[in-house]
Amino acid sequence: MDKTPPLEMTGLSAEEKLVFLQALVAEHRQSEIIEFFASLTGSEIANLIESFPYDARDALWEGLSDDQKGEVLSSLNESARAHLIKNLDASEICEVTHHLDAQDTADILDSLQDKRGEDVIDMMALSRRDEINQVLAYESDAVGRYMHTDVVRIRENIKLEVVQRYLRIKGEIQKNTLELMVVDGEHHLLGTLHVVELLRYDPSLLVADIMETPEKVLDTMNAIEAAKLLRFKNQHFAAVVNESGVLVGQLTAADVLELTVEEGDQTVRHLAGLENEIDLFAPVRKSVNARTLWLGINLATAFLAAAVIGQFEAVIAQVVALAVLMPVVASMGGIAGSQTLTLTIRGLAMGKVIGSNQSVLFNKEFAIGLINGAIWALVVALISQIWFQDVMISLVIGTAILINMIAAGIAGVLIPLVLKRLGQDPALSGAVILTTVTDVVGFLSFLGLATMLILK
Amino acid sequence: MDKTPPLEMTGLSAEEKLVFLQALVAEHRQSEIIEFFASLTGSEIANLIESFPYDARDALWEGLSDDQKGEVLSSLNESARAHLIKNLDASEICEVTHHLDAQDTADILDSLQDKRGEDVIDMMALSRRDEINQVLAYESDAVGRYMHTDVVRIRENIKLEVVQRYLRIKGEIQKNTLELMVVDGEHHLLGTLHVVELLRYDPSLLVADIMETPEKVLDTMNAIEAAKLLRFKNQHFAAVVNESGVLVGQLTAADVLELTVEEGDQTVRHLAGLENEIDLFAPVRKSVNARTLWLGINLATAFLAAAVIGQFEAVIAQVVALAVLMPVVASMGGIAGSQTLTLTIRGLAMGKVIGSNQSVLFNKEFAIGLINGAIWALVVALISQIWFQDVMISLVIGTAILINMIAAGIAGVLIPLVLKRLGQDPALSGAVILTTVTDVVGFLSFLGLATMLILK
Repeated sequence: MDKTPPLEMTGLSAEEKLVFLQALVAEHRQSEIIEFFASLTGSEIANLIESFPYDARDALWEGLSDDQKGEVLSSLNESARAHLIKNLDASEICEVTHHLDAQDTADILDSLQDKRGEDVIDMMALSRRDEINQVLAYESDAVGRYMHTDVVRIRENIKLEVVQRYLRIKGEIQKNTLELMVVDGEHHLLGTLHVVELLRYDPSLLVADIMETPEKVLDTMNAIEAAKLLRFKNQHFAAVVNESGVLVGQLTAADVLELTVEEGDQTVRHLAGLENEIDLFAPVRKSVNARTLWLGINLATAFLAAAVIGQFEAVIAQVVALAVLMPVVASMGGIAGSQTLTLTIRGLAMGKVIGSNQSVLFNKEFAIGLINGAIWALVVALISQIWFQDVMISLVIGTAILINMIAAGIAGVLIPLVLKRLGQDPALSGAVILTTVTDVVGFLSFLGLATMLILK
Repeated sequence: MDKTPPLEMTGLSAEEKLVFLQALVAEHRQSEIIEFFASLTGSEIANLIESFPYDARDALWEGLSDDQKGEVLSSLNESARAHLIKNLDASEICEVTHHLDAQDTADILDSLQDKRGEDVIDMMALSRRDEINQVLAYESDAVGRYMHTDVVRIRENIKLEVVQRYLRIKGEIQKNTLELMVVDGEHHLLGTLHVVELLRYDPSLLVADIMETPEKVLDTMNAIEAAKLLRFKNQHFAAVVNESGVLVGQLTAADVLELTVEEGDQTVRHLAGLENEIDLFAPVRKSVNARTLWLGINLATAFLAAAVIGQFEAVIAQVVALAVLMPVVASMGGIAGSQTLTLTIRGLAMGKVIGSNQSVLFNKEFAIGLINGAIWALVVALISQIWFQDVMISLVIGTAILINMIAAGIAGVLIPLVLKRLGQDPALSGAVILTTVTDVVGFLSFLGLATMLILK
């Protein structure tokens, strides 16, 4: 037995491919780059292109064939795609997209902010034009924009051997086809037939005898929600029907995976105040613009906190130690609150926080705020006592920590619940609102108590 | 045509199922709960059970059949599972797990912190015992712990019609089977055969004529990394081989999806300092324990920042406005830094930050820190001027904002890169280290400049 693993055993990782390409680019080995790209999928190439700054992207782009360009465009993030498509005219766009399905083409056309989109559609054959317009009619986050329409449709009243003969003469079929769709004469979805079952049952049986009830989603449903629904049911595949029950396409395992990754990435970006910044190596100007909004909002809340402190200048002037300890109160509230906030946002995303649960969670986080508040109030008061040898200061900071950590627990649960009820994404603004609450409550309780108890 | 969508069209969402179950639980309708559970998959039931506090979980658990109990246990998060398995003795565990595959069973046995694990294994038939011990020999995050072993193996030198006959007489085959595995006499993986292809080609062809090169991963590879590798290749399925090239199992689309969700969830939890807290409705005591570590680390860094401020008591006593504005400097640095940090962590996770890229990213974020620093320095200086009418204070805070936002950009790139090089998860401690840097640099530059320029 051969004991050494073959070289290609685990393939090159994404990192290794990137390092390899970086070397080729650095040495300007254009023909080897083209050869390397020929061995990769469109989404792999897109991933690599996104890992270079804009000028290098242009050079890499030139090395792609028209077909590759289309596949890469459909896989690139919005911002990288907009940059590369900028210099293409309508007929070039038509050329690189003509082999893509209607969904991918519609996505690309959506990135064109000008008249070129219409021009491209005008250049298409009538049947394709209809198809694209149908897809464009869906909301950009609907299942209809993500589904695949190349499903194999069969009728229910035929024998399995006929289905098998039909598949043999039929042209292209996706190799990853797991299920065939059973429809009636008006294309209403009746059931599905696993390809494996087709092989295993007696060929003289009818489709209707062994077909199963399919997992279905509506074409107008939000795609990320649909993926979540399927995931929770342990399904990785669904038939897509319109509101009349007519089969219009399918969501595949690849779609569900892509949508799941998109959802997770969105949460991480939103929690960090990176709403629109998807492109890691975008030019500086674009990134500066993308971050301005959240820096601005943060500045407003920071000055709100400053204004709170401003109300207590008298007591700070008298006891400078308060200024020294002030950030500790805000910081402990901030981290405790963000723990609760993240747990709640995660629970909401997983469909676990709803109905009578909400009060259970609230009570639990309130209790944790109380207990953790008491524990850390003691610790902080003790450290403060050792440092400043002033019982009143220690008492004030301990009490403020307790108040702020309870407030953090309450805010960490309530902010996402309220944002969700308002139809907002709790991850997007939750963290900024939370920090504002814990800063304001922290400074107010600490300096307010100090004014009452210490100011002479 | 029927225009109203059928009631079950999109199924009940996870939230709706939870609300339904909450109502049943509130009214103690035990028999209806059992009936409702019978319509759900094990992972759906696990998801629902995790949405209740511990006492309610015990009651729900009692309503499950032995087979359901096993499936639910294998889907539950570690903490919820540990609670429910606590009161089962070895023979009960053997009973509820006997129909699970070796991977799921090994997972459950891993949750037992005591002698029961060995007892359960001793009770098993010899063949199953071997199988379980083989799985337990893998690291807990290895592909071998996640793979499925129920693959269909065929030989390369037989005709397709023979394969089809074989499938027809073979017992159970997973309905979701997409590919058959082609192996030699010593079980070395030679290729794969799509089920659809088997249907479409001339039955007299040999397997060897149409089999394809399979996507392979090593059984000892980290499972999350393997899932990422497949995702980047647009593959949702892989054969699993050991280091001798022998086929030992497969990763399915469901596995890749599960691992992807796990990865995303880990990132979100780690960024929030929730390393070990997976269970949303765990008892208060458990949650308090789980959060103590990061609150403690945060307290240490907060006191470090306080110690920095403590060095400048003289200047604060003279100009109390400094205490008022101090948090603005730290806060702007904190948010700018966490934007960069999150982008870098995301880029690392996607395999986009490596090699010569790192300096590109560093230069870019440095430039953004400089530009954003300059912009917000002006804004903050202006507001401070209007508020305090003191040019020196405005100059000091503007300069400090500039310095801190540049430091934030640098730290936001370097911290995750260094943590990754040290073999740590950048998401786990990155945020705390970053905040420490921006707090210390912020207070030091602001109060240090003030001491030099303002203190008399």
